[in-house]
Amino acid sequence: MVNSVHRVSLGDTWSRQMNPDVESERYHQSFNVERLTNILDRGAHNTALRRKIENIIQSNPDFNLQDIYFMSQNERYESAIRRKVHIQKLAQQLGWQFDGPEVVYIYRALGGDVGLNLHMVFLKALRSLGTEEQIAKWEPLCRDFQIITTYAQTELGHGTYLQGLETEASFDTATQEFVIHSPTLTATKWWPGDLGRTATHALVLAQLICSGARQGMHAFIVPIRSLQDHTPLPGITVGDIGPKMDFEHSDNGFLRLDHVRIPKENMLNRFAQILPDGTYVKRGTVQSNYLSMVVVRVGLLLDEVIPLLQKACVIAMRYSVIRRQSRLQPSDPEAKILDYQTQQQKLFPQLAMAYAFHFRAVSLLEFFENAYNTILKGDFSLLPELHALSAGLKAMVSESCTQGAEVCRRACGGHGFSKLSGLPSVLTRVTASCTYEGENTVLYLQTARFLVSNCLQAQMSPSSTAQRSLPQSVMYLYAPVLARCPAQKAADFLHPELYTDAWAHAAARLTKDSVHHLQTLTQSGVDKHEAWNQTSVLLVQAAKAHCYYVTVKSFTQVLEELKNEPAIQQVLKRLCDLYALHGILTNMGDFLHDSFLSGAQADMVRTAYLDLLSLIRKDAILLTDAFDFTDMCLNSALGCYDGNVYQRLFDWAQRSPTNTQRNPAYEKYLRPLLQSWKAKL
Amino acid sequence: MVNSVHRVSLGDTWSRQMNPDVESERYHQSFNVERLTNILDRGAHNTALRRKIENIIQSNPDFNLQDIYFMSQNERYESAIRRKVHIQKLAQQLGWQFDGPEVVYIYRALGGDVGLNLHMVFLKALRSLGTEEQIAKWEPLCRDFQIITTYAQTELGHGTYLQGLETEASFDTATQEFVIHSPTLTATKWWPGDLGRTATHALVLAQLICSGARQGMHAFIVPIRSLQDHTPLPGITVGDIGPKMDFEHSDNGFLRLDHVRIPKENMLNRFAQILPDGTYVKRGTVQSNYLSMVVVRVGLLLDEVIPLLQKACVIAMRYSVIRRQSRLQPSDPEAKILDYQTQQQKLFPQLAMAYAFHFRAVSLLEFFENAYNTILKGDFSLLPELHALSAGLKAMVSESCTQGAEVCRRACGGHGFSKLSGLPSVLTRVTASCTYEGENTVLYLQTARFLVSNCLQAQMSPSSTAQRSLPQSVMYLYAPVLARCPAQKAADFLHPELYTDAWAHAAARLTKDSVHHLQTLTQSGVDKHEAWNQTSVLLVQAAKAHCYYVTVKSFTQVLEELKNEPAIQQVLKRLCDLYALHGILTNMGDFLHDSFLSGAQADMVRTAYLDLLSLIRKDAILLTDAFDFTDMCLNSALGCYDGNVYQRLFDWAQRSPTNTQRNPAYEKYLRPLLQSWKAKL
Repeated sequence: MVNSVHRVSLGDTWSRQMNPDVESERYHQSFNVERLTNILDRGAHNTALRRKIENIIQSNPDFNLQDIYFMSQNERYESAIRRKVHIQKLAQQLGWQFDGPEVVYIYRALGGDVGLNLHMVFLKALRSLGTEEQIAKWEPLCRDFQIITTYAQTELGHGTYLQGLETEASFDTATQEFVIHSPTLTATKWWPGDLGRTATHALVLAQLICSGARQGMHAFIVPIRSLQDHTPLPGITVGDIGPKMDFEHSDNGFLRLDHVRIPKENMLNRFAQILPDGTYVKRGTVQSNYLSMVVVRVGLLLDEVIPLLQKACVIAMRYSVIRRQSRLQPSDPEAKILDYQTQQQKLFPQLAMAYAFHFRAVSLLEFFENAYNTILKGDFSLLPELHALSAGLKAMVSESCTQGAEVCRRACGGHGFSKLSGLPSVLTRVTASCTYEGENTVLYLQTARFLVSNCLQAQMSPSSTAQRSLPQSVMYLYAPVLARCPAQKAADFLHPELYTDAWAHAAARLTKDSVHHLQTLTQSGVDKHEAWNQTSVLLVQAAKAHCYYVTVKSFTQVLEELKNEPAIQQVLKRLCDLYALHGILTNMGDFLHDSFLSGAQADMVRTAYLDLLSLIRKDAILLTDAFDFTDMCLNSALGCYDGNVYQRLFDWAQRSPTNTQRNPAYEKYLRPLLQSWKAKL
Repeated sequence: MVNSVHRVSLGDTWSRQMNPDVESERYHQSFNVERLTNILDRGAHNTALRRKIENIIQSNPDFNLQDIYFMSQNERYESAIRRKVHIQKLAQQLGWQFDGPEVVYIYRALGGDVGLNLHMVFLKALRSLGTEEQIAKWEPLCRDFQIITTYAQTELGHGTYLQGLETEASFDTATQEFVIHSPTLTATKWWPGDLGRTATHALVLAQLICSGARQGMHAFIVPIRSLQDHTPLPGITVGDIGPKMDFEHSDNGFLRLDHVRIPKENMLNRFAQILPDGTYVKRGTVQSNYLSMVVVRVGLLLDEVIPLLQKACVIAMRYSVIRRQSRLQPSDPEAKILDYQTQQQKLFPQLAMAYAFHFRAVSLLEFFENAYNTILKGDFSLLPELHALSAGLKAMVSESCTQGAEVCRRACGGHGFSKLSGLPSVLTRVTASCTYEGENTVLYLQTARFLVSNCLQAQMSPSSTAQRSLPQSVMYLYAPVLARCPAQKAADFLHPELYTDAWAHAAARLTKDSVHHLQTLTQSGVDKHEAWNQTSVLLVQAAKAHCYYVTVKSFTQVLEELKNEPAIQQVLKRLCDLYALHGILTNMGDFLHDSFLSGAQADMVRTAYLDLLSLIRKDAILLTDAFDFTDMCLNSALGCYDGNVYQRLFDWAQRSPTNTQRNPAYEKYLRPLLQSWKAKL
């Protein structure tokens, strides 16, 4: 059942009074909200553990987040470090594993506002790229915080294109050491979190040079600060990169290395090794050093990116049943803005997307967990598909969540521009995910490369045996082409099979078009690299359609698994329908282009879509309640469970330093200005 | 000629060395950049005046903006007030009019980071809504800053729907005063700039009540702070609303009024008057009190919103010829990212839009200047079209500039997330314009109402005489419908007449569809207000297409006027083509729906569009140089004229308080954490 103490958590004594405008939305429940929460949590036991953690965090004043909107970058940093240290103490008292499930729930409870997050990224990279001996040596040092670590890949002049990284790691056979060096200004490591003022060790990604030959990017553990007094070690120049659009609590930093020597065993060598004479021995594929990036990317979506869109939905939806504006009938009182079709058209597609992405990310995680262990053992056969799926999904999810969060923010009008609404932070944080862990366009093009190579393979060996051996996620490229959509009426567009086929059709056509474009160019004598560039806009479009298709498909599979729970199934099916149809409507050109849909069918899609908006309306608040965010973690004057928007906004504003500190500008500037006319008399 | 001293202005001695990667972009000029700047400035004399102002601002250290990215909200506020006071002194020394053209150029030179901006909004409202006597009384007080004013319309619970404002102004016949009162919490005025800590007088928009009858919204001048000591006057509760996504330099405030009495003459009464016995006499239409909002909206686009997109284009374009990533050919050095089709596809449509919107806004301004004086004289015949044009354009421009600025920001990868790039501020500022001065969806629906009523009129009186009497901007609704686009090859889509017709076709069809949808619903018995709501998603779509059409049309008219300047005409025509075709591509469904375009023609559009990208490539830097922003006003480590991106980013970061202040978190938290393992031994 709804745990209201858990929800109403900000300590406002008056907040236990529900605003009747939000209360009325919860009277009639067409489905069991708690059950849906359990599904989202992947099991009631997880819901229970999560709430246990949230209650611990929430009842401890050390973790209070209330003032973060008023803090400077330095204050944010210090408070995030403080929270991390308190968590560490709690973990010891309560016996939590330092990398157990609690970590994810703590992060969620604190809205990510906690320090030393790169420590886990270091650890994931260590486990992916290190040997068993290396893991045995370094993991305990991390666990006990004998060292504080970060992951230093990006450089001032180099990002997603890893081959372009300039930092060098030259093997010196005489001393059996690596010399780590930044040969230029642009080789300066730039952006790693926890680097600017905190970390003692960095996992530095650098070009390995041994016996004069460049062997590509490898990972090296480099001590950067003294464990005695935290000063930078010899040869190290390190600092903070300054103000950012978000992540103010994190000290993203820069690092220059001037011929820094580290022992040979500090190169992570699960997939590669240097012999004492400088001979390079490769054990994995050329891609194996990218594995740690895939690991991070997969976790990111469920733990960081998708919850931000979910939060934006919760805040905007709750506000939209409190806010009243204009009249639907001249004689009525002002209407809840959620009763306007235009507001529904803004918010419901974001809500549907938040669910669709969640289920897709869970499915990817399961695929990943299956593939990861075989890869660690040296079987790389699933890596290309895993890479293509995770790259495309990361790009689509981050881009759409950003767009969706901004839609939610603007749907709250002026108040969505106040930091107290919580929405600006959601937006400025989620938009970072479009860039970090791989720039989205580059990622889409990597997915496209996978699509193109499979499409070419299908053209070359169209036998059904060959097809059956191909990756699951691109099987649809081989399906017989359905020339026309069979829908006869709007209701036909509510059949999952029908719209899944429509998406498969569009994705396959766009991929084939891109391949055709590439082939036409190369046949006309254009060099193949130039042809790729001249096709890249089309390729990105194909990759996007593919990702949309895969996501629709995942969602329909979830619905099938819910056939014994008709109430939940029904409410989720509406979201799945809306997700699929919203995508068709906003990309209608792709469906009309080859007459797969007719103009009349396009109108049916629109009708089905608009009808769905009013059906979803009555469950809208419950569907956002099901995400089960605490008021503390939403940290929003607009989005609290009780709906007391205006009182909270007013009260929170009073605490702002602009009201609690004096105004020296009056004495210095305003009074002289206001009195200057007297001088002229 | 290019005034390079004017451009390279940040005082970095090394910055007079141009980065060769940006220098090479300026070797061959296919058109005269200076001439284009003059066109954008609407005359060489304006360019000269603007540069004169910029040089004055720039050479005065009082106006330095370098540290604003490091400041707190209070520091930003104080520095903006300081700058305003310095400007005031300069204006007196140099004899500038307080509302002369210099004001706009000063605002631009300072990137808007200056205080007391609401003073001018108050003044515009005074001139629109006040009588000649009222203007004569209050304007000199404003001019000399004997008072500091603001415009207080929005309330905590009420925004764009002005009829819903709760603040009351009751006329007391006994004392011949108004009693201004906030009857509820939600009636609290919320958001007005300069209100929180600065203004002495507010123009309060309130429901006029006289002789017990409510007469709708009117404007009242209310003194709120003592001119002696700046303390709030009796009955006034005033303060700052706290942290926002941007506009940190401005003290957006709240205001509660507890039965505050003001004299009768403080109601602005150009369009309405109260007789001593409380009789209400209306002189204008019901819309006339909205006039001041139209005035503000028109100015906003050219002075505030469009320049933000232009700046984002300048920064992203310059960075994109410095940044190199990956290889176009395996044997080549890494390529400038602007040479990738995907990067061109991101940036060039934004550049085209920046030009298209500029010319459209100039044209609207001219229409406005023509209409305004007739309206002030009581002839309201042009007000509906002016309102529809300005509302729709404000919505489209603000929405598209926001989207465009974010595209530019993300196109700069990780560095676009650093505040030092200048792009986060551009984005967080421009996105506010989607909400202030009228929420965009509401504005689109007002444009749609104008379209619907004209469309109905056309259906009712289809005679050509009736049509000729109709507003210019909707004449196309009456043109004979072209069933099919006549294009035969990609190059046909480079004819302005062809794509203008295509847009007219789409806009007319969407408007007619909406009208049909409305009529079908009402004929089936749905109440007309409910029918409007159920059609609102379609109506917004129609309004958007209309605005796009009007903008394409304006741009093509500018091209016609340039027929004696073929070089400029050619480069602008490519942008006009790109603007029109980009819109067709991204809304392709609307053009394929009724088979106006065929699938084959859609491919031609795409071909023409992709070809344009490579044509625009060689002029890209020059086209952004033509906006002629100074380095100071860009305030961007990525976007300076000399292209020295990396050195500047590195140097600026060193000045951050995260590097110049000590790190107390080490002593307090990190050292104990790092040493806690010892305790366990």
